[in-house]
Amino acid sequence: MPGSDDQQTPSVPPAFVRTRPPGDEHERDVCTRCGYVAYQNPKVVAGSVASSPDGLILLCRRAIEPAAGLWTLPAGYMEMGETVEEAARREAREEAGAELELERVLAVYSVPHIGQVQVMFRARLSNPEDIVPGPESLALQLVKWEDVPWPELAFPSVVWALRAWHEVRGRSDFAPFANPPEGL
Amino acid sequence: MPGSDDQQTPSVPPAFVRTRPPGDEHERDVCTRCGYVAYQNPKVVAGSVASSPDGLILLCRRAIEPAAGLWTLPAGYMEMGETVEEAARREAREEAGAELELERVLAVYSVPHIGQVQVMFRARLSNPEDIVPGPESLALQLVKWEDVPWPELAFPSVVWALRAWHEVRGRSDFAPFANPPEGL
Repeated sequence: MPGSDDQQTPSVPPAFVRTRPPGDEHERDVCTRCGYVAYQNPKVVAGSVASSPDGLILLCRRAIEPAAGLWTLPAGYMEMGETVEEAARREAREEAGAELELERVLAVYSVPHIGQVQVMFRARLSNPEDIVPGPESLALQLVKWEDVPWPELAFPSVVWALRAWHEVRGRSDFAPFANPPEGL
Repeated sequence: MPGSDDQQTPSVPPAFVRTRPPGDEHERDVCTRCGYVAYQNPKVVAGSVASSPDGLILLCRRAIEPAAGLWTLPAGYMEMGETVEEAARREAREEAGAELELERVLAVYSVPHIGQVQVMFRARLSNPEDIVPGPESLALQLVKWEDVPWPELAFPSVVWALRAWHEVRGRSDFAPFANPPEGL
């Protein structure tokens, strides 16, 4: 919410009700003060399983909620004006100072209850010597598959993506993974 | 915008200014009347290149703008609460009465200037005898590759998806297509 440093943005908060705008098939959040229809659409998360030339996987320890303190893959919400590939590279740069070469789409996951579509790439980490935690990361690690901290992974889709990555290691002739049966 | 049939939604329109909310890295549209921050995120379009058992491709003639009167693939905006697969199947049902069996992700396209990510599936049309135009379609056709109406296709990404579909016809061992060089 904007602060008092901006003359043009008052402090009266919006007051949304759930109602179906005329001509719409779905109920939307409509502001009772100004009539604004706040369309909610699923958001795109772009991320990657990035490995170093010697096969170590980049993991980031989250500095922010949800799941602060747990390990995740570099990933985050796509912004307007960028491609999904640019978003995946930007997130790795912001969270880990990592430069990625995206190889291909590894998986497309849906998380309907929070309105997310996650496009996960398989990527090569170009600068394993130079990675450094960004503001949203407490720490980074480059781990061997055998050393993945499974009990400390942040989200189910992190588990899915790592498992998918391992299953098709060394192959390029696979269809992108979707949610596993237990994730639907 | 809600009409006068809803007591709870007044007629004063929102008045947005472009400004950077505190703590945000990006400028957003903020309503000067109520302070609401209208986050804009890229939207997900889910669609498919669906073919009948004898290899005919389903095309829909658009009844609505943009590109009304031109031919497109069954596709549309994903809604909250559904998976990208459910969205692709729903759009085919709504636009063409078509029941699809999704086979795999064919392509993931980004259209940054309009904030879209398009997840396009390769699909099998289960009920080619029963298709019927929905409210957003003027007409449908099942076409042979040789008869695709190239000059009358609605959007560049329809051309890309059809070209991609043809390139990997009969194969499943391919990575999803991204924007072609001319589409970046």
